[in-house]
Amino acid sequence: MEFSSKLLQTAVDEMSQLPGVGKRTALRFVLHLLRQSETQTQQLTTALNKVRSEIKFCKKCHNISDAEICHICNSNKRDQTVICVVEDIRDVLAIENTSSFNGLYHVLGGKISPMDGVGPNNLHIESLINRVKQGNVEELIFALSATMEGDTTNFYIYKQLGDLPVKTSTIARGIAVGNELEYADEVTLSRSIQNRIPFESSLKL
Amino acid sequence: MEFSSKLLQTAVDEMSQLPGVGKRTALRFVLHLLRQSETQTQQLTTALNKVRSEIKFCKKCHNISDAEICHICNSNKRDQTVICVVEDIRDVLAIENTSSFNGLYHVLGGKISPMDGVGPNNLHIESLINRVKQGNVEELIFALSATMEGDTTNFYIYKQLGDLPVKTSTIARGIAVGNELEYADEVTLSRSIQNRIPFESSLKL
Ligand SMILES: [Zn+2]
Ligand SMILES: [Zn+2]
Repeated sequence: MEFSSKLLQTAVDEMSQLPGVGKRTALRFVLHLLRQSETQTQQLTTALNKVRSEIKFCKKCHNISDAEICHICNSNKRDQTVICVVEDIRDVLAIENTSSFNGLYHVLGGKISPMDGVGPNNLHIESLINRVKQGNVEELIFALSATMEGDTTNFYIYKQLGDLPVKTSTIARGIAVGNELEYADEVTLSRSIQNRIPFESSLKL
Repeated sequence: MEFSSKLLQTAVDEMSQLPGVGKRTALRFVLHLLRQSETQTQQLTTALNKVRSEIKFCKKCHNISDAEICHICNSNKRDQTVICVVEDIRDVLAIENTSSFNGLYHVLGGKISPMDGVGPNNLHIESLINRVKQGNVEELIFALSATMEGDTTNFYIYKQLGDLPVKTSTIARGIAVGNELEYADEVTLSRSIQNRIPFESSLKL
C-alpha cells in the first residue's frame, strides 16, 4: 500500500505491528483518529506511554499491578492458602470474571516450550516454589493450557515441589458445558471418560 | 472486565475506542506492547501524535498530503483532464492499487446522507465545481458506492455542473470479475443486464 503522506505511512506501519492488525485495519484505525479531535489521540497515546513506562508487576504473584503487591494478593478476603498457577495475565482476568475462585494466583509468564526457546528459567517457577516453601500454602491448582507444553510445565513444577507438604490439582478437562458430545475432539472426549465423576457428585454442581 | 491496574484499565479503555476493537482485543494490543521494548511504544505513540497534529489535506483534491498540494495533483505524469470523484481517502488508495487510473482525484469526504445529517455543504462539492469551472477538466468519473446515497450524490453533482462543458461517467457496476452469476445479488444482476455492452467491445478489455 502506497500512501500520499509519509506521516500517514509511518502511523499505519506502526499500528500494523499490533497483533492481528494488517495494513488495511491499521489505516482504518488511523483514519478514525484523524476524524476525531486531537485530544482523543493525545489521550490514547498518553495512556499507552504511561502504561508502558510505569507498569509494575506484583512482587508476589507477577500479575500486573500499580503497587508493589497487587490488590488480589493484598486482599484479606481471599483464601491465602490456595494458589492458582496460570500462564498469563489474561488467564487471571478470565478466571476472575467467572467469580468461581477466591484464592491467590501465580503468573508464570508462559509455559515450557523448547520449540519457542522457553525453558523453566524463563518462567516464574522458582518464585512459586519459594512461595510454597514459605509455608501457609495448602494447594496449588494448575490452570494451564490443555496442551503438551501445559502438561510439561505442570509436571516440571510438580517434580520441583519434591516432598513439600502441598496438595496439587489440575483444572478439569472435558466436554465444554453446553456443547454436543459429537463435536468434541477425540482427546477431550477420551479424557472426559477417563476422568468421569460419580453421578451423585455431578448432581451437586 | 476488571483490571488489577488502573494504568492498564485506562490504556485498554482508550484502545477499545478504535473501530471494531472490543475490550478483549484492546487488552491483547496493550499486553503486546508491554512485552515489547519501551521504544516501540514510543515510536507508535509519536507516529500517531505526529500524523494527528501535522496532517494536511491537499488544497486541490482533499486527499491526505504532507504538502499543500499532494503528489498526485503535482505529478506531471498524470492526466490533468480527468478527475475521479471518490468518497474517501481509502477509495483513492484502492484505485491507486489497481494501477488502472492515471488521472486526478477529488475526495468528497463522504456522501449525501440525510439520515446521517450529511448534506451537500458538508462535502467538498463546491470545490469540485470550481475545479471544473477553471477549465481544463474534460471528464468526471463518479466512483462512489453503489448505494442510494452514492447515486444521490452523483446526481446532485451532475445537476450542479449545469451546462459546464465536461463529460461525466460512472464506474461500471456488474458481476465482479471471477464471480459466478448465481451468487450475484438481484440488483447487481439486473443492472449488469441493463448496462450490457456490445460483445465486440468486451473482447477488447
Ligand atoms: Zn499479586
Ligand atoms: Zn491533490
